[in-house]
Amino acid sequence: MVKKIGKQTYKPNNPPVIISTAAVVGPFEGQGPLKEYFDHIYTDLNAGERTFEAAEREMLLNACFTCLNKAGKTPQDVDFFLAGDLLNQTITSSFSALELRIPYFGLYGACSTSAEGLALAAMLVDGGFASLALPGTSSHNASAERQYRYPTEYGFPRKPQVQWTVTGAGAALIAAEGEGPRITHMTIGKVKDLGIKDPLNLGAAMAPAAADTIVRHFADTGHGPEYYDLIVTGDLGKFGHQLTVKMAASNGGFDLSQNYRDCGLMIYDTETQDVHAGGSGCACSAVVTYGYLYKKLMDGTFKRILLVATGALHSPVSCYQGNSIPGIAHAVSIEMI
Amino acid sequence: MVKKIGKQTYKPNNPPVIISTAAVVGPFEGQGPLKEYFDHIYTDLNAGERTFEAAEREMLLNACFTCLNKAGKTPQDVDFFLAGDLLNQTITSSFSALELRIPYFGLYGACSTSAEGLALAAMLVDGGFASLALPGTSSHNASAERQYRYPTEYGFPRKPQVQWTVTGAGAALIAAEGEGPRITHMTIGKVKDLGIKDPLNLGAAMAPAAADTIVRHFADTGHGPEYYDLIVTGDLGKFGHQLTVKMAASNGGFDLSQNYRDCGLMIYDTETQDVHAGGSGCACSAVVTYGYLYKKLMDGTFKRILLVATGALHSPVSCYQGNSIPGIAHAVSIEMI
Repeated sequence: MVKKIGKQTYKPNNPPVIISTAAVVGPFEGQGPLKEYFDHIYTDLNAGERTFEAAEREMLLNACFTCLNKAGKTPQDVDFFLAGDLLNQTITSSFSALELRIPYFGLYGACSTSAEGLALAAMLVDGGFASLALPGTSSHNASAERQYRYPTEYGFPRKPQVQWTVTGAGAALIAAEGEGPRITHMTIGKVKDLGIKDPLNLGAAMAPAAADTIVRHFADTGHGPEYYDLIVTGDLGKFGHQLTVKMAASNGGFDLSQNYRDCGLMIYDTETQDVHAGGSGCACSAVVTYGYLYKKLMDGTFKRILLVATGALHSPVSCYQGNSIPGIAHAVSIEMI
Repeated sequence: MVKKIGKQTYKPNNPPVIISTAAVVGPFEGQGPLKEYFDHIYTDLNAGERTFEAAEREMLLNACFTCLNKAGKTPQDVDFFLAGDLLNQTITSSFSALELRIPYFGLYGACSTSAEGLALAAMLVDGGFASLALPGTSSHNASAERQYRYPTEYGFPRKPQVQWTVTGAGAALIAAEGEGPRITHMTIGKVKDLGIKDPLNLGAAMAPAAADTIVRHFADTGHGPEYYDLIVTGDLGKFGHQLTVKMAASNGGFDLSQNYRDCGLMIYDTETQDVHAGGSGCACSAVVTYGYLYKKLMDGTFKRILLVATGALHSPVSCYQGNSIPGIAHAVSIEMI
């Protein structure tokens, strides 16, 4: 019997526990409204390293080791490290895997990686293939700018829809038993494409996938939005958030106006920090979830959260060749039970 | 109880079955010694598409649909599509996922992706999270050349250690029950780095990971090389193959001289086809395994095969910054039982 309900949602027999998490961020994120929830705030973008890419790696390793330390575990205790990032050939993750010496599943889900890793880790734990799994992800504003918009000195039009790539990294430790919130459902997304071709409007490229996964999750589980204290998408920003509210209403009849927020709108003070439409990047949902939301679950503020991490499967080569930008979103229910 | 034996090897309760496979290749691969085992040989590198990247996508989709058709299945029957490729942002896989409309786990394991996807698919099936899973992967000589060595017209030194990226795609359909060979063990690799910095000698960069995973597999299972009719690595080429034989002997005392081959040395006629050290690319192990080896298992020539797909986690940016090239290898035992 497959542990599936509906079409795309999975329900573990014994919901795996998130026994610890860690989130580290760059200096700009450390000035935002969630600063007190992060384990470490770097004072410079280089994090003491020679390159931005090495700095991103330092951040992911820091998040992983901090997460392990909190649970009193070492890399040797962990069965799998599941990680991905935005850099070509996911070098942050693979070089971190080299340092961690944990058997490694490399992922690519763009900014949906936080939920992709969390869902897979939960499946491997509940499926009997891991006693401890460590999903992690990262992004870095300067390494992402270099890759996607190099030479960055030339600048590019900063339209209102543009988002700001979050600098930081997050990791979680998933176990079969222990103290902490549990992963009760995973809804694995399909790739969706509504024809957006503008790489400066990725929120709109991801919104159809976010709405599709949210509607699918509710249809599969029979729950409505009110089941959750909070529904959060990964990094849709202001315009993607609005679009998702509209699409969830028109495609599924679900009212997201009450308890739906976007991590990209939570991590910065959008009044005083000049991030245009909000934050983005793999680290966006990871540091908000593993920093802020995890602590709010542990202190009883929230009982049930639906994390819907969203990825724009954006490729400069594919854009230059005239293709549109598909998106994907995976949802994970995190509950104190 | 975790289904683990030794340190990195997993043994499913009910070994999942590979109920069908498909392999398609480009024109050059279609002139090689395995040509009769492929489902389709494209007559031009563009596969009727406008770009090499679109051609690669056409090939992966063709492999997926052919694999589904052979089993009498449709995309709607499949729980997960697990795919990755060499292109930045793994666009072949994500655009194929868009067409297939199957819930999608994006992977990045470079040329180890065939075994990474196969191992994860088997874990999801045995863990009760999928009744059918479709792992797939691809590579394309011209899209890879464009990405890694553009402008390709400038050329680059073709040292004897250089390999030739295979054009093609492979897919497999994994089920809990059915006719076909079964996945009996998975050994999940760690990232290894012996300090190779030469992107024109990737066989040597991957050999330490291959040897480590092979030695680990034998140590964990208690089997020796003689347990298998054939041990195949993914794409180490001539020099990586030699190095792996030496390292397996010196690090583990295992004699690989009798029944160990490399897919990169099987797919081309290295006497008449000018591929220097052999084939490489995600498709290399995928088309050899899903084309040739699968049929040889089904017709009784082989009973037990150990597939060890090997990935060089090579990044131009990371190389320019002075880092060495880490490698990873995952092993999957495929047996007629």
